Amino acid sequence: MISLYTADYVVTQNDARDILENAAVAVQDGRILSVGHADLLEILFPEHRRVDLGKAVILPGLINAHTHVSMSLLRGYSDDKALMDWLTQDIFPAEAKLTPELVELGAMFSLAEMVRTGTTAFYDMYMHQRSVFRAADKLGLRAVMGESVTQYFPSLSCRDAEAYFDLVRTQAEEWKGHPRIRQAVLPHAPYTTTPELLTRCRSLADETGSLFGMHLAETESETRTCLQTHGMRPIPYCESLGLLQPDSTFFHVVHADERDMELLSEGRCAVVHNPASNMKLASGVAPTGAMQRYRIPVALGTDGPASNNAQNMVREMYLASLLQKVTQLDSTACPAQTALDMATRGGSDALHEPLIGTLEPGMKADFIALDLSTPNMQPVHNIVSNIVYAATGLENKLTVVDGQELYRDGRFLTCDYEALCAEIKAIHGWQSRN
Amino acid sequence: MISLYTADYVVTQNDARDILENAAVAVQDGRILSVGHADLLEILFPEHRRVDLGKAVILPGLINAHTHVSMSLLRGYSDDKALMDWLTQDIFPAEAKLTPELVELGAMFSLAEMVRTGTTAFYDMYMHQRSVFRAADKLGLRAVMGESVTQYFPSLSCRDAEAYFDLVRTQAEEWKGHPRIRQAVLPHAPYTTTPELLTRCRSLADETGSLFGMHLAETESETRTCLQTHGMRPIPYCESLGLLQPDSTFFHVVHADERDMELLSEGRCAVVHNPASNMKLASGVAPTGAMQRYRIPVALGTDGPASNNAQNMVREMYLASLLQKVTQLDSTACPAQTALDMATRGGSDALHEPLIGTLEPGMKADFIALDLSTPNMQPVHNIVSNIVYAATGLENKLTVVDGQELYRDGRFLTCDYEALCAEIKAIHGWQSRN
Repeated sequence: MISLYTADYVVTQNDARDILENAAVAVQDGRILSVGHADLLEILFPEHRRVDLGKAVILPGLINAHTHVSMSLLRGYSDDKALMDWLTQDIFPAEAKLTPELVELGAMFSLAEMVRTGTTAFYDMYMHQRSVFRAADKLGLRAVMGESVTQYFPSLSCRDAEAYFDLVRTQAEEWKGHPRIRQAVLPHAPYTTTPELLTRCRSLADETGSLFGMHLAETESETRTCLQTHGMRPIPYCESLGLLQPDSTFFHVVHADERDMELLSEGRCAVVHNPASNMKLASGVAPTGAMQRYRIPVALGTDGPASNNAQNMVREMYLASLLQKVTQLDSTACPAQTALDMATRGGSDALHEPLIGTLEPGMKADFIALDLSTPNMQPVHNIVSNIVYAATGLENKLTVVDGQELYRDGRFLTCDYEALCAEIKAIHGWQSRN
Repeated sequence: MISLYTADYVVTQNDARDILENAAVAVQDGRILSVGHADLLEILFPEHRRVDLGKAVILPGLINAHTHVSMSLLRGYSDDKALMDWLTQDIFPAEAKLTPELVELGAMFSLAEMVRTGTTAFYDMYMHQRSVFRAADKLGLRAVMGESVTQYFPSLSCRDAEAYFDLVRTQAEEWKGHPRIRQAVLPHAPYTTTPELLTRCRSLADETGSLFGMHLAETESETRTCLQTHGMRPIPYCESLGLLQPDSTFFHVVHADERDMELLSEGRCAVVHNPASNMKLASGVAPTGAMQRYRIPVALGTDGPASNNAQNMVREMYLASLLQKVTQLDSTACPAQTALDMATRGGSDALHEPLIGTLEPGMKADFIALDLSTPNMQPVHNIVSNIVYAATGLENKLTVVDGQELYRDGRFLTCDYEALCAEIKAIHGWQSRN
């Protein structure tokens, strides 16, 4: 059966950035069959199930290319502190109390937020990651993810490095061929790993057919430490270890000079910019405009809910644009279209999944629809401007992944949202228990 | 009749910043009678109309202390341009086509957005301002406002300066004693006025009992021009003309040095910070932390919808905090409580209305309630953190001004919102007509 989703606008994000009015998206077997004017598609596909979204704009699902979804449990738990105080006084002690069950609940809750606010795919790294795989499988989102690893063992999930390597191999088998979920090997960061661990991780990614990702060049102090320890800035250090490969995605990349960007470009790596987290933790401002001039694919991510404090990619697009403008003192920097590109086409690059990020025939049917009836979304002089500069994220009224509806008109269709809220309330105080 | 509004949380914003759980706000005759635990207030006031808001947080209405509401008609009309191109190529030519009817419609639409997203009071300056007075009167919002004036005549509303002075005098009579609306004399900016016009405006404010406000120190180029023309930076220039008075509110104040802040502090003036506008137009970053150290009252404003592109004070609080953190490279800068203070208590200072901004007995009954059932608002470790860092604004489910409900559970109670949307759609293309 063909489903025909009609709305006032369809923002295709195709190469020509076509925007159609009174348009429709035809979906069959999880793929986009056609995008065009509603009247025409109704004639072309007379047998269809019609979903009329009315005053709304259909666009590609937003892609959250860096997060730690389970940290929704720590939303608002600690804010407004210096980074190391925040981590050592509050976040690490709480995380030590996490169980696989808590991690799964936190993940389910963030996934509900993503589904609610128009995100269809995400790239996640955390601990007890098996729980997050299960959550993404259940809720129907698309994901790249894996267990984060440092040189410090035992970790919450693994007693030693061998146990970690075994875990990755087992999970590679478990999730092989999954239509929406793919594993990545995810060393935490240059300053929490050894060169040996990093090169072994790289080989493990090749061996298991996993993607590769890492936090990189997030803070000034990371650069200083890397220069002291390895005599190189973080990005040349990664290059020297053979980590700059086309299947690699680096998170943050706030502190990058021209040579760093040249290396990332030559390695054909993707970068994920996290404006909210970089602002809130005072990490600095990533040079996204310069990266784009170097043709480095730049995606957007929220980072975890403990440092954001939301999982809302609409807000992230807005911040990405405004942060560049004010820090470059250039109001033409990062226009609305560029911000939307980062959250859609850039996300496709960062997740290494070419069949998402645009609405075109043959692409996977991952899309959302923002309601245009709230005051902030009217009038429509420029629909992309309204999406990036005026929307809040809660306008979203439809979330579809692989052709499956996950959220529509206030209802979560793949989870019992009320039960989830009750569970979140019931575990209150978990972080202080023994 | 006493109305008792109950909810999971009440954020009072009183001097102790008390936050109550399972709490209630009792309202009578447009004033707050009591704030306390729900059970207790039910016993104290057995005869009441009860409004149970359930999973929600009641807080003082947010105060948008600088905007040009009628520019909702130009939302998304022009973005991502250099300031002077934006103004001269797009905004000024469109504004030349404005009529009093269009200005009123634009104002009504922005006021609907404010009511929807939790703003109860605003400070506005624009042209054809009579239309905005009418809109605020109709919709029931609280406002300080007036006609903006420059040295360039004829303006849209006045053929010469005398006509402007007459208009202010007439409006002072017309709106004298209004319970919610107060006039201000509003010269546009130092660079669009003469010293003579500014001192006459100051006298006019005294003569008519109006407040006084002006755009000030918004851009680097304004400072340069003022130094060239008057041999002084903008703030000392205003001081030399006697403009720094306790009834004065200055909008933006991005470029202020220590001496400037000393003068504003000595003059007991209020300042309105507009983070979204300053970021989007690349004006720079106001030193709000330093201003607060000088005990200058700092409020928040959205600026007009053409440069924001919303009228959403929840987003503005979030930006105010994050912008300070990233540009000071200090994650402890502008904590959540400070941002909430600016949008409530600071707004009270900027509107020179002491009886708003907190929920305490005797205060005017201006308050809102954010729904806590969306995923981004849970769990609640720190309700102020969730309001500032996680909310979008669309969580708002109740807007009350002077005890009157303007919005509740999806319904606009003082305007026909559907008719407004239809009017906005019907005038499409107004800016290109003759």
